[in-house]
Amino acid sequence: MKAVCLLSGGMDSATLAYLARDQGHQVYCLHFNYGQRTERKERTSAQKIATLMGAEEFVEIDLSYLTWFGGSSLTDHRLPVDTYQEDRREIPNTYVPFRNANLLSIGTSYAEARGAGSLFIGVQSQDYSGYPDCRPQFIEAFQRLIDAGTREGTSIRIMAPFLTMTKREILTIGSRMKVPYEYTWSCYQNEDRACGVCGACYFRRTAFESLGLRDPIPYEED
Amino acid sequence: MKAVCLLSGGMDSATLAYLARDQGHQVYCLHFNYGQRTERKERTSAQKIATLMGAEEFVEIDLSYLTWFGGSSLTDHRLPVDTYQEDRREIPNTYVPFRNANLLSIGTSYAEARGAGSLFIGVQSQDYSGYPDCRPQFIEAFQRLIDAGTREGTSIRIMAPFLTMTKREILTIGSRMKVPYEYTWSCYQNEDRACGVCGACYFRRTAFESLGLRDPIPYEED
Repeated sequence: MKAVCLLSGGMDSATLAYLARDQGHQVYCLHFNYGQRTERKERTSAQKIATLMGAEEFVEIDLSYLTWFGGSSLTDHRLPVDTYQEDRREIPNTYVPFRNANLLSIGTSYAEARGAGSLFIGVQSQDYSGYPDCRPQFIEAFQRLIDAGTREGTSIRIMAPFLTMTKREILTIGSRMKVPYEYTWSCYQNEDRACGVCGACYFRRTAFESLGLRDPIPYEED
Repeated sequence: MKAVCLLSGGMDSATLAYLARDQGHQVYCLHFNYGQRTERKERTSAQKIATLMGAEEFVEIDLSYLTWFGGSSLTDHRLPVDTYQEDRREIPNTYVPFRNANLLSIGTSYAEARGAGSLFIGVQSQDYSGYPDCRPQFIEAFQRLIDAGTREGTSIRIMAPFLTMTKREILTIGSRMKVPYEYTWSCYQNEDRACGVCGACYFRRTAFESLGLRDPIPYEED
């Protein structure tokens, strides 16, 4: 039972890869470089996780055209990264236009070429507070696209097991599976010590704190 | 009025770019290199067409990961290219898994970043005899994906004006607009003289012959 797993190197996707494996899949990991600030650190994290969980393949794909198109602080290093604000109404400037459709399209091509029946993506409920391409209706629309656009006889299901979960719930599951979170990276801004204030850091820290767990990665303020 | 136009360099997409311009759009051309056999020739053709029709931008994107995934004779040069067979029931081996979803996702990211309201793609009725990602239901499913996955307030419409047309009808429109077909390339197999027998050559030649027009490109048998 083959599965493709989108593996950024963050805590959600690391948990996802372990979950896919524990469900009995042979896991084919896809990692994306799209010119994000912390790419070097994310790649190292994703590779380490893939090795530790025994992935069949680890493929890195370069999407640097997303940098070229511009418009996001994740890829345009002249823009400051938005910090987390609870009352924010607009989409954070870390949004990369239609990014997840790019990732899922490539994942589907890979799954179809390898004969994999599942495509795992780690989107979770706190993502779609801000990003339109993380919402349940987006994932459902993508499933219909796969059904319409792949070879007859092909069946690829998008697996988004964390879609309605919070990071706290994901961490609960991951802790049970002993996911090595010391090798994961979430911060949007730094590669050595996590900034602690960007959206990704905020949700990660809050999840660890709410479970009374120690986050094993270093933070700037430590 | 900005429009993104997927421009392979073949006769359909060249006609499409001219049509978009004639409808009053500023045209942003996207060309894809995915390791297909005739890429050098296609790129030259697409660039020439973009220049002649006065495109705002010409962007080339490398999708060579599709080569790496394998499974298609277009990108795996060890496999022979299927010749056209009228009674073929299976999908031709030139099919690249889920290719058009990759192209449309990138096109949507580009359109969203540039503020373009239209995304032109040159799929036509003779394509979806074989390829699942050229069918009307695939295009409709992609429109729903765009609506679900882009920023609120963004409106990007997929324009597939040739969706129900044959190549003969496309050629009729293009001839009226004086599309310079001598700079387009369709053959899947050769870059100097078109082979005349692959599916792309078959449909192109039949279209020219049925209208009593001379195809200005050289063929092997000439």
